[in-house]
Amino acid sequence: MKSQIKTTFSNFFFEYETPRQVLVKNKRVAVVCRIIQMGVLAYIIGWVFMYEKGYQVVDTAIGSIFTKMKGVSFTNISKKERIWDVADYVFPEQGDSSFVVMTNYIVTVGQKQGKCAELPDGKNKCNSDADCDEGKYKRMGNGHMTGRCMNETSTCEIYSWCPVEDDRKIPDPPVLLTAENYTLFIKNSITFRQFNVVRSNLVESVNQSYINTCLYHPKTDPLCPIFRLGDIVERSGLNFSEIARVGGAIGVLIDWDCNLDLSIRHCKPKYEFYGLYGTGKNGDKEEKPSLGYNFRYAKYYVEDAVEKRTLMKVFGVRIDIIVHGRAGKFDIIPTLTAIGSGVGIFGVATVVCDMLLLYLVPKRDFYKNMKFKHTQILEEE
Amino acid sequence: MKSQIKTTFSNFFFEYETPRQVLVKNKRVAVVCRIIQMGVLAYIIGWVFMYEKGYQVVDTAIGSIFTKMKGVSFTNISKKERIWDVADYVFPEQGDSSFVVMTNYIVTVGQKQGKCAELPDGKNKCNSDADCDEGKYKRMGNGHMTGRCMNETSTCEIYSWCPVEDDRKIPDPPVLLTAENYTLFIKNSITFRQFNVVRSNLVESVNQSYINTCLYHPKTDPLCPIFRLGDIVERSGLNFSEIARVGGAIGVLIDWDCNLDLSIRHCKPKYEFYGLYGTGKNGDKEEKPSLGYNFRYAKYYVEDAVEKRTLMKVFGVRIDIIVHGRAGKFDIIPTLTAIGSGVGIFGVATVVCDMLLLYLVPKRDFYKNMKFKHTQILEEE
Amino acid sequence: MKSQIKTTFSNFFFEYETPRQVLVKNKRVAVVCRIIQMGVLAYIIGWVFMYEKGYQVVDTAIGSIFTKMKGVSFTNISKKERIWDVADYVFPEQGDSSFVVMTNYIVTVGQKQGKCAELPDGKNKCNSDADCDEGKYKRMGNGHMTGRCMNETSTCEIYSWCPVEDDRKIPDPPVLLTAENYTLFIKNSITFRQFNVVRSNLVESVNQSYINTCLYHPKTDPLCPIFRLGDIVERSGLNFSEIARVGGAIGVLIDWDCNLDLSIRHCKPKYEFYGLYGTGKNGDKEEKPSLGYNFRYAKYYVEDAVEKRTLMKVFGVRIDIIVHGRAGKFDIIPTLTAIGSGVGIFGVATVVCDMLLLYLVPKRDFYKNMKFKHTQILEEE
Repeated sequence: MKSQIKTTFSNFFFEYETPRQVLVKNKRVAVVCRIIQMGVLAYIIGWVFMYEKGYQVVDTAIGSIFTKMKGVSFTNISKKERIWDVADYVFPEQGDSSFVVMTNYIVTVGQKQGKCAELPDGKNKCNSDADCDEGKYKRMGNGHMTGRCMNETSTCEIYSWCPVEDDRKIPDPPVLLTAENYTLFIKNSITFRQFNVVRSNLVESVNQSYINTCLYHPKTDPLCPIFRLGDIVERSGLNFSEIARVGGAIGVLIDWDCNLDLSIRHCKPKYEFYGLYGTGKNGDKEEKPSLGYNFRYAKYYVEDAVEKRTLMKVFGVRIDIIVHGRAGKFDIIPTLTAIGSGVGIFGVATVVCDMLLLYLVPKRDFYKNMKFKHTQILEEE
Repeated sequence: MKSQIKTTFSNFFFEYETPRQVLVKNKRVAVVCRIIQMGVLAYIIGWVFMYEKGYQVVDTAIGSIFTKMKGVSFTNISKKERIWDVADYVFPEQGDSSFVVMTNYIVTVGQKQGKCAELPDGKNKCNSDADCDEGKYKRMGNGHMTGRCMNETSTCEIYSWCPVEDDRKIPDPPVLLTAENYTLFIKNSITFRQFNVVRSNLVESVNQSYINTCLYHPKTDPLCPIFRLGDIVERSGLNFSEIARVGGAIGVLIDWDCNLDLSIRHCKPKYEFYGLYGTGKNGDKEEKPSLGYNFRYAKYYVEDAVEKRTLMKVFGVRIDIIVHGRAGKFDIIPTLTAIGSGVGIFGVATVVCDMLLLYLVPKRDFYKNMKFKHTQILEEE
Repeated sequence: MKSQIKTTFSNFFFEYETPRQVLVKNKRVAVVCRIIQMGVLAYIIGWVFMYEKGYQVVDTAIGSIFTKMKGVSFTNISKKERIWDVADYVFPEQGDSSFVVMTNYIVTVGQKQGKCAELPDGKNKCNSDADCDEGKYKRMGNGHMTGRCMNETSTCEIYSWCPVEDDRKIPDPPVLLTAENYTLFIKNSITFRQFNVVRSNLVESVNQSYINTCLYHPKTDPLCPIFRLGDIVERSGLNFSEIARVGGAIGVLIDWDCNLDLSIRHCKPKYEFYGLYGTGKNGDKEEKPSLGYNFRYAKYYVEDAVEKRTLMKVFGVRIDIIVHGRAGKFDIIPTLTAIGSGVGIFGVATVVCDMLLLYLVPKRDFYKNMKFKHTQILEEE
């Protein structure tokens, strides 16, 4: 018994099996076969390894963004001069990756709680008190109906913040058209967890003195982290004066595509801009409903012991900064997986060649005999 | 030398090798083997290719979200009527993907800086001044201890915004229970970078007139981007009146699963709702601590040259909108990788069959002789 | 014809082909070959299956975060005592995953719209009115130039919120240095869509009584969801008093790495802290511009019918909480793909062995004859 195990073991170690093969001397089949094999090899080396970098393991980035707007606007509405600075026109104030720059607004000063007539904008008409269900409110309405129909406006009386905001006419041109010249500073930090790499968009060539003077331009200053608001809007394919009037949303994509087999210095961001929510380049306006971007915002105060508020309907450019990071680095697992798959595909090539040889070539029966050996005996059962 | 290279070269091109094989006429082994091979083939074609779409390359979406609430609430607390509109109950105001709708609150009007007694809520008891370390503050406390123990309340005196907020009793029923009827409008734009596809949740069938009247319903209106707040809460498996009282967090998932080999029109969002932070369906309340959702928020004002504030402890429904997008498209690399792997698995099938043949079949020695040829010579060393 | 199909069919089912092989009795080659094959096997089993868990399908988490700060600060500036609580120092107030804790500030009380001199900080010097273009504004300026050069300050007169904020001197030590003792409570909920698993960072061992008293410590309390602000800053490699003065950004990473083949109880979060925006550990200050973190924020009020505002330049610790979740679970597809690849790599091993045998061994011609059979006939064409 022991010697048997020993024999098996020594056989296993000192013998090895390799397939027996026929060398087929058939030019046509051989050439076709070699071409297929070389095609597979070229595909594996050229495409999988060189182009797609199949030998790399890939990690996506975790990003963090801080933004800061700069710039002031000056308005002169009905002889009232006013300056707008960052604390006035950015929402929210703390430098988030998603924020709104106010470019236009409708202000309703001194609202207080009480009863007044609903806005006569066509959606809230009434003919008699019966049209105004007491205690209900309409989906498009501004308050709670009291049950009375007001004669002067032909709209229901409502309990609401009064006077009701009149947003039927959006200021044109937009009040803060000079917002075009504001600048946006973006600080972006990304982390590739798997590779323990942290990187900032203030790369080596971007130093303090450069930041003080530069302005982003895709050709001349592709790494400057300071952007003119008007440029952002225009590069995303939108029209600034239109967006400034009704509002709009723009995505700023910071795209990192890093090959960590090279020096980290080559790992640089690329900035891209595009319109969001279907306000895109295609001009397919009639198809896409709900253009524009606006929200309401109130400043509360107390006057003569009565709580009042100033309601702002803010139209603006909403900017969503999105980080898309991807880094690749050589790793043995994807390399071997790619090679393994490649050898598998080589097998496919052999199968194709054999089909040619055994079914299409005139001498196929001869080759069949060469390739196959038949077991003569038949089974007993 | 030259001719030798030439020969090698011509041999390489005009000859090709194909493995010699034995055709084993053994019904049992053959049937088992064919079944295994067909199983592998069925698995590769059916599962990898058809079900898992292994021939597609996959990209995940970059999404951008804008939200807008609509609706008003009317309250009548101790004869004081009040209306609440969007600017009053949504935090933050600018339409983020994560926001809070206030449903209940505890208000403390007219706080100003000064000294007063800590809240007698059991956590801040004192018997003598020694219990109140001057200059320290307690983790659950509201201010800086002055070192005195107040007799009336048996709590430490603190320097704080006075009077201290009393949040021991949460209003029940919640003040803004009608928040159930508010509607939420979601605009979602996604980008599949790799395929250069941009898509909005306002798909082809959702036009302006539809939006004006529709309300989301999973069966009848699965694409309407307008949601009733009460529906969102209920569909996530929570109880609105409970959530409205103590607050809660709900995730709204916009799920895009697109097959870009088909028309882009079939790429549609699916909305799902679920409770967050363990306030889920399972009713496992005793296991999960820290239910509810609330935060504090202050409105500052100046009265008689003294800075004061109105502190609100806001309970509400926090809504986190999350985009999960995935698109697949035919690509040659994953196709060939899948085929390569498949051929590899075929090889496994052959190995299994050979084992059957060589170790389990009665005539195994005969087959061994057919399959293997021994090299007779032994090594010299 | 019919019988021919039948024969083909029965041949296909009752015959199967297996490659003929030579058993090469060559110790050296055999040993090398076996070693290579065992290496491949060890790699596939040990690395791909055990270490990298190649038999698992992987899903990334969708996370949702709620934060709550606790703690008060007491300041005594020029005999003016003041307490700061959560509603005063956290921006935004509603408990987002990204927020700022104010640690220092420059306040400008009672700004109103009007004309005043630009700040004499060196960047805005003028010698004559010609240096002050009327109606323009400078990138670093605070308002709209009126065209006058003011003699007293040698700066341009501007239309702005007056008086202009003087941020030349940042308070040192920071006003709210006691912010170090604030605590941060993090609630994190994650969802693995593919596996239908929802999990919260308040895992089984974290119950209400534990939360009431615990404080995060990587060794002793790695699961406590309550963090001291000073600890967070220090663990990220930064210096609290420096960060508190000029501001800084810190990433808190909640890392979930779950093996769902085990019990869900082992799926626990790990917390990590790191500095963002290049304010990192390496101390490479001169290379990285734009340190610090600050933003401006205004509280508006009306005094004597004039709109005024209190402008705060807030310096603080910005905390970005990031969720990185990954769960793996056994699945048949990746298992078979890994096996398929492995068999492919086995093929590579055979190719290497054959090269040894056919090109390097002394008796190579003998082995060539054993392995290959030549087709004798030449082609006619």
